[in-house]
Amino acid sequence: MSYPRPLARLIEELKRLPGIGSRTAQRLAFYLLSAPPEEALRLAEAIKEAREKTFYCSVCGNFTDIDPCSICSDARRDKGIICVVEMPRDVVAIERAGCFKGVYHVLHGVLSPLDGVGPDKLRIQELLQRLQEGEVREVILATSSTTEGEATALYLKRLLKPLEVKVSRLAYGLPVGAEIELADEETISRALEGRREI
Amino acid sequence: MSYPRPLARLIEELKRLPGIGSRTAQRLAFYLLSAPPEEALRLAEAIKEAREKTFYCSVCGNFTDIDPCSICSDARRDKGIICVVEMPRDVVAIERAGCFKGVYHVLHGVLSPLDGVGPDKLRIQELLQRLQEGEVREVILATSSTTEGEATALYLKRLLKPLEVKVSRLAYGLPVGAEIELADEETISRALEGRREI
Repeated sequence: MSYPRPLARLIEELKRLPGIGSRTAQRLAFYLLSAPPEEALRLAEAIKEAREKTFYCSVCGNFTDIDPCSICSDARRDKGIICVVEMPRDVVAIERAGCFKGVYHVLHGVLSPLDGVGPDKLRIQELLQRLQEGEVREVILATSSTTEGEATALYLKRLLKPLEVKVSRLAYGLPVGAEIELADEETISRALEGRREI
Repeated sequence: MSYPRPLARLIEELKRLPGIGSRTAQRLAFYLLSAPPEEALRLAEAIKEAREKTFYCSVCGNFTDIDPCSICSDARRDKGIICVVEMPRDVVAIERAGCFKGVYHVLHGVLSPLDGVGPDKLRIQELLQRLQEGEVREVILATSSTTEGEATALYLKRLLKPLEVKVSRLAYGLPVGAEIELADEETISRALEGRREI
């Protein structure tokens, strides 16, 4: 089946999106052609506007349309605690939990030597800069518990040691609501290791 | 979590797409912000271009960028057999099978009185018009085997009866590769009913 050229192009572009395969791209493209024209054009405009008006906060590196971002410029947030995350989406996840009142630092990646990502590719210099300004009491390393996330946390822990700032890592254990039966061995052994008296 | 406004707007627009929930919309939006700018803008342009340059074929009603469409204007296709389908995506599915050499007629929906879709909302007049031109020997009703698809096929069968054109319906039976054990009762009884000597 040869699609009309503009439709084929749209399907190709949609297929580049993460998690969107051929079938989904086709379904979305047909939807965009059948939807009211203003709806399709609003999406096109939203993509352009988001690219034009969104940038990285000069302080924390999160996406923002004002600089510093709304979190960094919020007087109620504790600038003494920096939570270091891999990506902007991690800020969203932690903010959703609603219990963290410090500020963030987005690395924009994890150390991954095989992919050519060394410390210079991450926003580590910017983190050291923030720490040298002296106000910071604690750095929470909230990278993923994957091999790369762990390696990045370990690297940062060593790097920050001479600065005499408290460095912590998110707790490991069972996800809330999870059945023990379904948890993997590593998670169970970490949950046992980190057990607390109640 | 309050997103920067342009990002919030992009997430909202992505959420309107079929099968895209909040999490997926957020993931796609973050991807579009992190991707090379030309990639995001190419998608925005592809949406606009597809809307501007794609329209319905004046003969069959399928999406096209030339009129009549590439199928209707293909001299090798048999204009004597019209396959009537619900949506443009059904043309894609049948073309993918690669064995149909006739032409199509896209109804752009099915009869659905509860949703206010009567015969006048479908491209039925256009179908009658094509039949009156006299060249057509057979109409294959390839609507879905859902309640609405069946009702639409039945409606069309009655409507076309006086025109003395052969009217057929796609065969019912087991999907190829399916295990009998897993087929539903209705499919099995239709497969038995339509059994063929081998």
